[in-house]
Amino acid sequence: MSSFVLAPASLVALLHGPDQPGIVARVSGWIFERGGNILHADQHRDMEAGIFFQRVEWVPANGDDSADTQAFHAFASSLGMAARVTSSNHRPRVAIFISKFDHCFHDLVLRWKSGDYACDLVAVVSNHRDLEEAARGYGLPYHVVPVTAATKAHAEAAQLALLRSLDVELVILARYMQVLSEDFLNQFGRPVINIHHSFLPAFAGGKPYHQAAERGVKLIGATAHYATAVLDDGPIIQQDVTRVTHRHGVDDLIRKGRDLEKIVLAQAVRWHLESRVLVYGNKTVVFD
Amino acid sequence: MSSFVLAPASLVALLHGPDQPGIVARVSGWIFERGGNILHADQHRDMEAGIFFQRVEWVPANGDDSADTQAFHAFASSLGMAARVTSSNHRPRVAIFISKFDHCFHDLVLRWKSGDYACDLVAVVSNHRDLEEAARGYGLPYHVVPVTAATKAHAEAAQLALLRSLDVELVILARYMQVLSEDFLNQFGRPVINIHHSFLPAFAGGKPYHQAAERGVKLIGATAHYATAVLDDGPIIQQDVTRVTHRHGVDDLIRKGRDLEKIVLAQAVRWHLESRVLVYGNKTVVFD
Amino acid sequence: MSSFVLAPASLVALLHGPDQPGIVARVSGWIFERGGNILHADQHRDMEAGIFFQRVEWVPANGDDSADTQAFHAFASSLGMAARVTSSNHRPRVAIFISKFDHCFHDLVLRWKSGDYACDLVAVVSNHRDLEEAARGYGLPYHVVPVTAATKAHAEAAQLALLRSLDVELVILARYMQVLSEDFLNQFGRPVINIHHSFLPAFAGGKPYHQAAERGVKLIGATAHYATAVLDDGPIIQQDVTRVTHRHGVDDLIRKGRDLEKIVLAQAVRWHLESRVLVYGNKTVVFD
Amino acid sequence: MSSFVLAPASLVALLHGPDQPGIVARVSGWIFERGGNILHADQHRDMEAGIFFQRVEWVPANGDDSADTQAFHAFASSLGMAARVTSSNHRPRVAIFISKFDHCFHDLVLRWKSGDYACDLVAVVSNHRDLEEAARGYGLPYHVVPVTAATKAHAEAAQLALLRSLDVELVILARYMQVLSEDFLNQFGRPVINIHHSFLPAFAGGKPYHQAAERGVKLIGATAHYATAVLDDGPIIQQDVTRVTHRHGVDDLIRKGRDLEKIVLAQAVRWHLESRVLVYGNKTVVFD
Repeated sequence: MSSFVLAPASLVALLHGPDQPGIVARVSGWIFERGGNILHADQHRDMEAGIFFQRVEWVPANGDDSADTQAFHAFASSLGMAARVTSSNHRPRVAIFISKFDHCFHDLVLRWKSGDYACDLVAVVSNHRDLEEAARGYGLPYHVVPVTAATKAHAEAAQLALLRSLDVELVILARYMQVLSEDFLNQFGRPVINIHHSFLPAFAGGKPYHQAAERGVKLIGATAHYATAVLDDGPIIQQDVTRVTHRHGVDDLIRKGRDLEKIVLAQAVRWHLESRVLVYGNKTVVFD
Repeated sequence: MSSFVLAPASLVALLHGPDQPGIVARVSGWIFERGGNILHADQHRDMEAGIFFQRVEWVPANGDDSADTQAFHAFASSLGMAARVTSSNHRPRVAIFISKFDHCFHDLVLRWKSGDYACDLVAVVSNHRDLEEAARGYGLPYHVVPVTAATKAHAEAAQLALLRSLDVELVILARYMQVLSEDFLNQFGRPVINIHHSFLPAFAGGKPYHQAAERGVKLIGATAHYATAVLDDGPIIQQDVTRVTHRHGVDDLIRKGRDLEKIVLAQAVRWHLESRVLVYGNKTVVFD
Repeated sequence: MSSFVLAPASLVALLHGPDQPGIVARVSGWIFERGGNILHADQHRDMEAGIFFQRVEWVPANGDDSADTQAFHAFASSLGMAARVTSSNHRPRVAIFISKFDHCFHDLVLRWKSGDYACDLVAVVSNHRDLEEAARGYGLPYHVVPVTAATKAHAEAAQLALLRSLDVELVILARYMQVLSEDFLNQFGRPVINIHHSFLPAFAGGKPYHQAAERGVKLIGATAHYATAVLDDGPIIQQDVTRVTHRHGVDDLIRKGRDLEKIVLAQAVRWHLESRVLVYGNKTVVFD
Repeated sequence: MSSFVLAPASLVALLHGPDQPGIVARVSGWIFERGGNILHADQHRDMEAGIFFQRVEWVPANGDDSADTQAFHAFASSLGMAARVTSSNHRPRVAIFISKFDHCFHDLVLRWKSGDYACDLVAVVSNHRDLEEAARGYGLPYHVVPVTAATKAHAEAAQLALLRSLDVELVILARYMQVLSEDFLNQFGRPVINIHHSFLPAFAGGKPYHQAAERGVKLIGATAHYATAVLDDGPIIQQDVTRVTHRHGVDDLIRKGRDLEKIVLAQAVRWHLESRVLVYGNKTVVFD
């Protein structure tokens, strides 16, 4: 939003729980009574499940964001709701995992350098040395953690130690070609966004462009999702597709797919960083 | 929304006016205090202009929609806001204007017959007899009002008299090939939705597909907008485009354009009927 | 193509077989030497498989299309190629199969009535009576063939007998809710185009919109394909998608999907009737 | 095409002129008789104008591309056709003009570095120093030519001298914020590709995103075209659009537009470099 640039420090709450009468009035009343000014509020009801979802962004009185954060959590609990509150003053610490493909990596870093992402890129982690020079050219610390079938457990332990030492709050898998184990995801316990190069659930797993060419589809896609223990099955954040024809061989699908992957991953990361993505069950509510 | 089918009678208010602190809390609080239950609420701030926009849908206590409608208007006035409130019990009376092209006509009527549109189609008005049989096949009254340069003023007077006698609340120009005069629009004083067969503001006026072919564009479009005194310049409700190549002659653009026109007009009509379109200045806010 | 309207009777050949040097020159030379005039020629090579594909459209000398058809088949054989030749004078006889959903049915028939499809609609076949009046309103013969698990074999036999008696050359499954058996498809032995309401291969089988809502995808799709013995697995002719959000429940997906289904099926039928679709293996080459 | 990577040196001819019987057979026959092997051939007829267009790609016998190039030009002349022949052995020399915006610049250079573009980037020319470090980081020579209203003629003379000394064959205006004079374009006499940040012909001239926001359009676009003497009026190569809503302010349009501009310009440059774009009148035929 254009307003973000000029806006003072604000809070964003993502709230969900059992639907109840007057919930919109209660939340906005709570903020108003404390002297806050609501900038945006967007809510959604899942009628079948009876769940209420809300994203509300406000400027707290006197700019006291930490007091309001605490108080809002307590308030949400009193409503029986789960809440996540983030301050625009907080810049999440982010690590990018890559292998040899560089298109998503360059794309993310250039967007970050141009000021699109309110976060700190604190580490680039790779199982290869190929992109080390590129990363260092951007002034980014580059950590090589080789992974083989035999060393995977050790490698993941090293990655986890690194992420913890840097207090990383978000990992972006920017065409990282290793599958992270369930154990790793559990121990890290924070969001991991992956880009899969197909329109999921079609063509999960390896070599999706080859699978797409084999099946003769007329559109190829890309899907950004939170990584979970089940491969390519996590909550979908964003997807897009592009048209292909018989004139496109697998190499063309790969080339055209790169643009899709960049756009879709970049969009998902933006939404996550702006606290626009609320996960529930295996789905997302994206307040865009 | 899937919920519409099952929902009890509800009210939708479209509200806009000068932004002010606590406005979200006040509106939702007002509804809550009167025992109403908010189903959906969506708001928007134009930060530069300092204007607040809201669409709020609620079920009033005891289903008393007429009392709440009156009271909400008074409440909005007290906030210095303009409001339009419609009840889901009210089915707007709609007239479709057509000439000889039938694709938008069939499309709208079939959607209406399948229950997509909560309105009453009370008249089909045309300057030609060509589609009379088709209209009567659907059981719709068909009014022929021929228009020539010499008789235009008379024709418009006859159209106006008809619309008034039928208490028509919305006119849809479904490829009606006559330009309605400023005087007609002023006297009718209610919304008129037009479909223009280009991506406005490109190719306003006559023969837009010919203009598009001449210019060599790679996409053709369609635009649904409210008709105003300035031809093809009214507030845009919806637009879409489709890709064309050098292999497409003007006839192909016309054929491909028909699908665009149908979809774009159908969407705009749906949004209008669901009270999702708020006009301000020469623009629209569409709460979709 | 706009030119088709004005063009004299022409032939279209769809040709494919092992790639070989000079193949383009040979085909065009053959036509030229017989006094024919090529209107369009489009070719494709599958480099990996070493297969050559061509669609060529020409006006034979003296308009003698039956002699050229015979001769071209012989010529193609001499090149080791498979060929299918159709004359623009030939209007294929088409049957539409439907159940209770009417959107694709109305859409196809209205396009046909407006002259978009150079074919004869000779039968509407349904397992229900619901759309009988609508079909008869269009002047189309309507055949009711009820289908239950117990009577399926009998029903298919009746359908086959009907198709043969009418010399039907193409069957369009316009949201026909019964699965045709492998035996039926083999015995019919002519193309059957189906519309599936998902982006295949995602969500094959029943209730794809429910599956899509369950998985939380951000795009829903539709796929037109030739029916084969394996359900929803035949060669894909056309696909398209549209964006959905958490605000869309299953009913909304169904509603939005109807527009996709109409457009995708209509496009596939058009391409098939214009001899633009060449099937090879389980894929299609579409010369659009 | 995936085949391009593995293919031996080949020739591409772009041919157009008065349509005539047997033209496809003559061209393919000519290549075949000289022992060449056609890889791709695509033709188009403008039926109204009676013009024939062809792109044909072939591997000459013995790989003798310079002899075939000469001979083909003579052959085309004998048919009364204009032809442009390029060899896959020839890498065009390209200059990129930029000002301060860097998104298209990074995008083009990264694609070029990854091997997507078969050309040599021989110069980056800018009227500002802002991107000098970025260009040098890529190892690209950076030329600063400041431009003011008073010095424009001098500046263009310096640019021309530079382009000639480097034998530049294509200039890409990657959000270069100066208008090149008609005189400059005439003297350079070679293609200049520009990216305009709107769906032309809508919003030509300055600040198109502001114009778009003012008009309230629901889609914003980008257009890549050859620069001509009339501002934003040259032959269009590629266009695309993306959806916007009332929630997007001008800054959001600018941000979303950047992705459009990158994709559209990158595609146009690719097509140009692969000899897929044939200009005629003020339009293009793109053999994609």
